[in-house]
Amino acid sequence: MSKTLQQISEYLDAELRLASTENSADTIQVVSLAPLDQAKQGAITFLSDTKYLSQLDQCQATAIILTAEVADQFADKALASHVLIMPNPYLGFAKLSHLFNPAPKPVAGVHPSAVIGDNVSLGQNVSVGPNAVIEANCDIADDVIIGANSTIGAECKIGKGTRIYPRVTLYHGVTVGELVTIQSGAVIGSDGFGFANEKGEWHKIAQIGGVRIGSRVEIGANTTIDRGAIDDTVIEDNVILDNQIQIAHNVKIGYGSAMAGCSGVAGSTEIGKYCIVGGGSCISGHLKIADGTQFTGMSSVTGNIKQAGTYSSGTGVQETAQWRKSVVRFRQLDDMARKIKALEKQITQLDQKEQD
Amino acid sequence: MSKTLQQISEYLDAELRLASTENSADTIQVVSLAPLDQAKQGAITFLSDTKYLSQLDQCQATAIILTAEVADQFADKALASHVLIMPNPYLGFAKLSHLFNPAPKPVAGVHPSAVIGDNVSLGQNVSVGPNAVIEANCDIADDVIIGANSTIGAECKIGKGTRIYPRVTLYHGVTVGELVTIQSGAVIGSDGFGFANEKGEWHKIAQIGGVRIGSRVEIGANTTIDRGAIDDTVIEDNVILDNQIQIAHNVKIGYGSAMAGCSGVAGSTEIGKYCIVGGGSCISGHLKIADGTQFTGMSSVTGNIKQAGTYSSGTGVQETAQWRKSVVRFRQLDDMARKIKALEKQITQLDQKEQD
Amino acid sequence: MSKTLQQISEYLDAELRLASTENSADTIQVVSLAPLDQAKQGAITFLSDTKYLSQLDQCQATAIILTAEVADQFADKALASHVLIMPNPYLGFAKLSHLFNPAPKPVAGVHPSAVIGDNVSLGQNVSVGPNAVIEANCDIADDVIIGANSTIGAECKIGKGTRIYPRVTLYHGVTVGELVTIQSGAVIGSDGFGFANEKGEWHKIAQIGGVRIGSRVEIGANTTIDRGAIDDTVIEDNVILDNQIQIAHNVKIGYGSAMAGCSGVAGSTEIGKYCIVGGGSCISGHLKIADGTQFTGMSSVTGNIKQAGTYSSGTGVQETAQWRKSVVRFRQLDDMARKIKALEKQITQLDQKEQD
Repeated sequence: MSKTLQQISEYLDAELRLASTENSADTIQVVSLAPLDQAKQGAITFLSDTKYLSQLDQCQATAIILTAEVADQFADKALASHVLIMPNPYLGFAKLSHLFNPAPKPVAGVHPSAVIGDNVSLGQNVSVGPNAVIEANCDIADDVIIGANSTIGAECKIGKGTRIYPRVTLYHGVTVGELVTIQSGAVIGSDGFGFANEKGEWHKIAQIGGVRIGSRVEIGANTTIDRGAIDDTVIEDNVILDNQIQIAHNVKIGYGSAMAGCSGVAGSTEIGKYCIVGGGSCISGHLKIADGTQFTGMSSVTGNIKQAGTYSSGTGVQETAQWRKSVVRFRQLDDMARKIKALEKQITQLDQKEQD
Repeated sequence: MSKTLQQISEYLDAELRLASTENSADTIQVVSLAPLDQAKQGAITFLSDTKYLSQLDQCQATAIILTAEVADQFADKALASHVLIMPNPYLGFAKLSHLFNPAPKPVAGVHPSAVIGDNVSLGQNVSVGPNAVIEANCDIADDVIIGANSTIGAECKIGKGTRIYPRVTLYHGVTVGELVTIQSGAVIGSDGFGFANEKGEWHKIAQIGGVRIGSRVEIGANTTIDRGAIDDTVIEDNVILDNQIQIAHNVKIGYGSAMAGCSGVAGSTEIGKYCIVGGGSCISGHLKIADGTQFTGMSSVTGNIKQAGTYSSGTGVQETAQWRKSVVRFRQLDDMARKIKALEKQITQLDQKEQD
Repeated sequence: MSKTLQQISEYLDAELRLASTENSADTIQVVSLAPLDQAKQGAITFLSDTKYLSQLDQCQATAIILTAEVADQFADKALASHVLIMPNPYLGFAKLSHLFNPAPKPVAGVHPSAVIGDNVSLGQNVSVGPNAVIEANCDIADDVIIGANSTIGAECKIGKGTRIYPRVTLYHGVTVGELVTIQSGAVIGSDGFGFANEKGEWHKIAQIGGVRIGSRVEIGANTTIDRGAIDDTVIEDNVILDNQIQIAHNVKIGYGSAMAGCSGVAGSTEIGKYCIVGGGSCISGHLKIADGTQFTGMSSVTGNIKQAGTYSSGTGVQETAQWRKSVVRFRQLDDMARKIKALEKQITQLDQKEQD
């Protein structure tokens, strides 16, 4: 994995400012990607947050991605590194990461140990790993990768370029868009948690809806997305879900939203576009969350959010001995508030008497 | 999937009230199941909550399930739909969902790629999917379905009509009752988290107990149930567990209880019968929870619950800027309570002086 | 599974005090391990907490592990059981549990249905279960057990005596030390949740780091450990992780730390040595947690912890009706604190006036 600075500059569509004219860009080799404080000769790095500006002087990287603003600010100093100019250096880093990714690429073709059902359509250049199972009537588009020991239920439809890592389950009738990434252990299309209770006995409601996953979606390891009760559960395009997330039946997650690990969304809730859900948050069922809403970690959301904004809950940690006292008082809060009100009244009366 | 109204009425054991005598019940076809606000000609729907009563007028469904009470109330209006009478229309919906479920049924038989250990007893009409593994000495009753890529450890016993979806693990010696559903990714019988600490080193305690799952139990996707340390972990009949739940070693969950997603129960806790645990709740170890207890979402349960009732914890979300202030004050709560007490004392003294 | 008392005493390196001289230690048979209150003839048990001292009199176990202190205290009473003396009887229990573990041992060898890639090095006495997949260039040391339906990505290195249960995924390039236990459903080396956002579009950052797991580590069922963005995610020796835990990219967990189920640690956080994290806790990203820190269950950790100690957050459950009032007041806390301050000022002024 060695690229010339010229190749990188073209790949990123970034303006190149050489530190010296000694070598030309197509002879300068970049062999790795590194964080600013660890980048050595041969590496390319980036500055995405100006709070690390002071590290620029010591930087020994062969090349660094900067905004034009920062680059101009350093124009008078003799930076050791060649500079690539991008409005969003972090995006440059994201793009470069794929160039320097040592992960082996699965080979195209169906491994002989995989089991493919009747009437499965496999596109060009599809890779199906060892012991994977694809049930009947699936439609797998070009360039799809299905990892070892994964199970794709009947009548699934998987769009072009989607990658399914090993040990993923899609139940029957799940639709996945293009360029989706599904990490290992994810389960999509499992039964929603729907039961009717009759005199203490639970009667299961067959979940006859499906799941529709848009394009450019990420689904993290061991994340679960239930199928709908009657209608579908829907994850729109450009949504990213971290690991260990639970999405219940008939949830809808809007375009561009992101959820961090260990969060859960209960049934039929609609999360708007461009929302951010912090890790460990739980969102109750049948709610509507406005576009652009953000929740910090471990938020407990039990009502509709009508206004975009940042919301939080919980108390944050404190030393346990002191916390115990706070918890006791928390339970007395209403009483405390009433006492304050009573005191205010008494003091007003006293003040009155004093003035009389 | 088309059924006559006559067939449905018999299946549900529901009284039928035709909207007109134009057609007889055995010629009226129902082809789908739909929510009240979306049901069209050909569909059957239901009204389970009187807050949707106003939607009845517009309902275009071929048939609707109502309570006798609601049906009588509408007797004078000319409802477009034929009516089925049931005391619990939601139960009717639950039952009908299985009639209109398009999910393909696995065929009976052992797929040639499945690996069956020595001395495994397979009942009538058992289905074992591709690449599933059943280890030695298992006892699999009639009508059991074991999905692709699942692994059943040695000496497991699985009761009649139980369905194990793809990619489930049962460790050795797990007992599962009849008509149980286990969703994909679930792990049952993994080692409990038991260690002795000696001078900072963790010494694993072999978990020599097992897991006993009753009948008519649901176990959600990626839910984990650990085996007992010495005795068994026990899930009683008619318990329903959603996705991503963690049940630690030697927990006992009583008949008819339900737990929503992302909850966890620590070791040796006993949850009574007919309890409801809201999503994201954590219940500490070695507790007893009374029959009929309910916890709302994200409850943190650290003590015994001796009285049935509904319990909650946490603070609910508020805007982050304001929340930060609340959190700071939460840590000062004990101090605030003391100040109120001091103020009450001072004001009493002042009042006294005033009166003197 | 029958051992003589002599064998057990030697295995535990424990002093033996026979209850009588009727039989010699090498003729007394122990056939099971049981808790103190359930141990019968033939069983061995232990007392690790003096709060159960009163149960000693009724104990019918063949043998019991006690500290010298407790044994001396009971020297004058005629205990029915033979006594084994250990400074830490619970450690004795941990060690004995492996002697009395009925779990079947996997046989050495590669099952014919397993798929082994090119250039995989398999040590002596390795067991690879049915339908397991080991990709190219892996290095599997002696005595490793890899369970059915597990997938080991290319270029992994697994140390001597490590046990991987069925249905585990290791992505490519994961390093695992010796004597590690990985429970079913665990995923190690999945992509960290790294994305650059450009005008609302998420651009995935290839996660080019790896995961390094030390020796004597336990990883629970359905726990996920993401690979690093550039550097590695690191779990040091002697760390124990329960089920359903999420470890994000570039986290480091120090020697001897333990995390209970359903916890999560966000990206780049460093947890020190000998920390204890209670179940359901969430630790934010880019933090440093001091050695020896303990968090109680459901802690929300959003800042560095510089001092070892025990920390907590949340409110604990209370009855919902009362809790609702507390939650309302929680949101008014800052206002309440201000009112108290105002009252204090007013009362001081009144007091002043009174004295004037």
